[in-house]
Amino acid sequence: MERRKFTKTLITSMGALGLSQNLMGNALLNNNNKKLGIALVGLGNYSTNQLAPALLETKMCELKAIVTGSPCKIPQWKTKYGIMDHQIYNYENFDAIANNSEVDIIYIVLPNNMHKEFTLRAFSAGKHVICEKPLALNAQEASEMIAAGKKANRELYVGYRLHYEPHHQETIRLCREQAFGKIKHFEGGFGFRAGNPNQWRLKKLYGGGALMDVGIYVIQGARYTIGEEPIAVTAREYKTDKVKFSEVDELIVWQMEFPSGAVASCTTSFSASTNHLFVAAEKGFIRLSPSYTYNMIAGYTRGYSFDFPQVNQQALHMDGISNHLINGVPHLNTGGDEGLRDMKVIDAIFASAASDGKRILI
Amino acid sequence: MERRKFTKTLITSMGALGLSQNLMGNALLNNNNKKLGIALVGLGNYSTNQLAPALLETKMCELKAIVTGSPCKIPQWKTKYGIMDHQIYNYENFDAIANNSEVDIIYIVLPNNMHKEFTLRAFSAGKHVICEKPLALNAQEASEMIAAGKKANRELYVGYRLHYEPHHQETIRLCREQAFGKIKHFEGGFGFRAGNPNQWRLKKLYGGGALMDVGIYVIQGARYTIGEEPIAVTAREYKTDKVKFSEVDELIVWQMEFPSGAVASCTTSFSASTNHLFVAAEKGFIRLSPSYTYNMIAGYTRGYSFDFPQVNQQALHMDGISNHLINGVPHLNTGGDEGLRDMKVIDAIFASAASDGKRILI
Repeated sequence: MERRKFTKTLITSMGALGLSQNLMGNALLNNNNKKLGIALVGLGNYSTNQLAPALLETKMCELKAIVTGSPCKIPQWKTKYGIMDHQIYNYENFDAIANNSEVDIIYIVLPNNMHKEFTLRAFSAGKHVICEKPLALNAQEASEMIAAGKKANRELYVGYRLHYEPHHQETIRLCREQAFGKIKHFEGGFGFRAGNPNQWRLKKLYGGGALMDVGIYVIQGARYTIGEEPIAVTAREYKTDKVKFSEVDELIVWQMEFPSGAVASCTTSFSASTNHLFVAAEKGFIRLSPSYTYNMIAGYTRGYSFDFPQVNQQALHMDGISNHLINGVPHLNTGGDEGLRDMKVIDAIFASAASDGKRILI
Repeated sequence: MERRKFTKTLITSMGALGLSQNLMGNALLNNNNKKLGIALVGLGNYSTNQLAPALLETKMCELKAIVTGSPCKIPQWKTKYGIMDHQIYNYENFDAIANNSEVDIIYIVLPNNMHKEFTLRAFSAGKHVICEKPLALNAQEASEMIAAGKKANRELYVGYRLHYEPHHQETIRLCREQAFGKIKHFEGGFGFRAGNPNQWRLKKLYGGGALMDVGIYVIQGARYTIGEEPIAVTAREYKTDKVKFSEVDELIVWQMEFPSGAVASCTTSFSASTNHLFVAAEKGFIRLSPSYTYNMIAGYTRGYSFDFPQVNQQALHMDGISNHLINGVPHLNTGGDEGLRDMKVIDAIFASAASDGKRILI
């Protein structure tokens, strides 16, 4: 298969998913030029270096407010993004955002233990919510957040950026169409070396740990390539540094069993770098390596590689959500229900790891 | 690091390992031009398409006999390799090879359940033995084979060809020198789609199954990159086709724990293709993908790929063994003791898989 064919089929499939407009910058969808206003809650690395720059590229939404507990961060946001005083909130006066008609969507980029609280407060303020992954600390919290959204008649989305990434989209398409036959096996790993020992990702209180932070991408990858929901999980946890990782998981290896018999073999780590997705089907395979990065994602299969353009995943994701809210165009499966499914798997992985690898039904 | 440096350090390290002579075709080592005679026992695919052609390239050994239970195969070996009548044996009269002074080494390329019997018979005939992997059906058999070799004062080697493959050698060197710091994690998978449902690899009697056939390469990879012996194993077995794989393992996912805390996460399959080795260290990684093939092996690490020449692994391996026998130059860790170590791991993997993933100490 030639690259041209891939590019063509990609565009076709993206069209079918209602996405071509985003990539092509089609203004027809947004006739009134109204952009949705987004408030970023939490001005850490991801907001600062990914989301705010992405919001300079979005066509259907824009940065309209910031929420931070660190006043020292404010001046640079004023300078860089023209943020005005009435667009600035802290965690105490956040609820007053209900009165800010410029803001349509609250994007929660806080430590994991704060996701539920701020999602509920955002719904109370009448806003839609995008919550960073993982959606919550566990499935119970995630369910409460979904229920709160329904009650408030507002939408809940999860920061699953890779659904808007072309290599992943092509991988999903090839899997759905069984281009290489039935899927038999998945292997995936996402890990990095967590440097600073004081970061919240290493604290239990904040919902830290490798699985919650990056392992979730591997769960996602297995689920959206195999295209089924796992029915059972087995997991093992390992520690090489019991001081640094005294509170959270350093390395978890787990397996997921799917109804078709496909099995996913997965790894996540805070002490070593790994970044790949591999799907083995009856007659071929697909590999993404690296797979979960913001750019440089590369795809391979038998005999050829597929090299789509690197896109601004965050910009496409936020535009996809805005397109859903403005025009009712389906988003690419990044809703709260999808977040809940992953939390159920995460709960099962922790349960298995805590019981010496016992098989946990989901 | 540039490719030139890699090439240079490779050659240096190969020299240190006593291997440069093989690669460089240095005749000094073999002054008397005596080549060791090899008998191939079992004329299946591996003998026919790999070992016999390799023996046309070896400098220190040559094909001097064949042993087969299929007379119909004989004419092509006569034509292609000039095999003469006195160089042909079957499984019944094999022991008469004791009287054939042309034969120094018996290379056993039979189904796994016949390894022990023919190794013992070869030692009784006063010959050295190369036995294909896995060395035996289990560690007990492997120990008996090693003991028999010691008693007969003859050498036992295993068909571990990858120790003579430059990408693997470079990977081992980088790991040993801790080029990227301490090794934290290993991921590896080797699987293929076993087509013919009647092949011996799918029969329990013959010692079939994915783990014995190709999973052993992943065990090897983990052991020679991490450079330690595993202390515990956990494993899970899965079947998607209970008819085809009624007798042997179709898919096994296992973990190995090493004394340093490093963990290996491994996969083997007879229903899907996977072929990779990944080592994550503190400050970097090494990936071989594909990793276990006869050629096309490719290495990657951060910022560069290492593309050494594809070599004839089997020829280098058999020359390395011959060099050991003729000149006492150390072989590259492909002895019977290495085969036994893998069998201990395999025994533990089967024990864990049979006990619902229980942690088995080795």
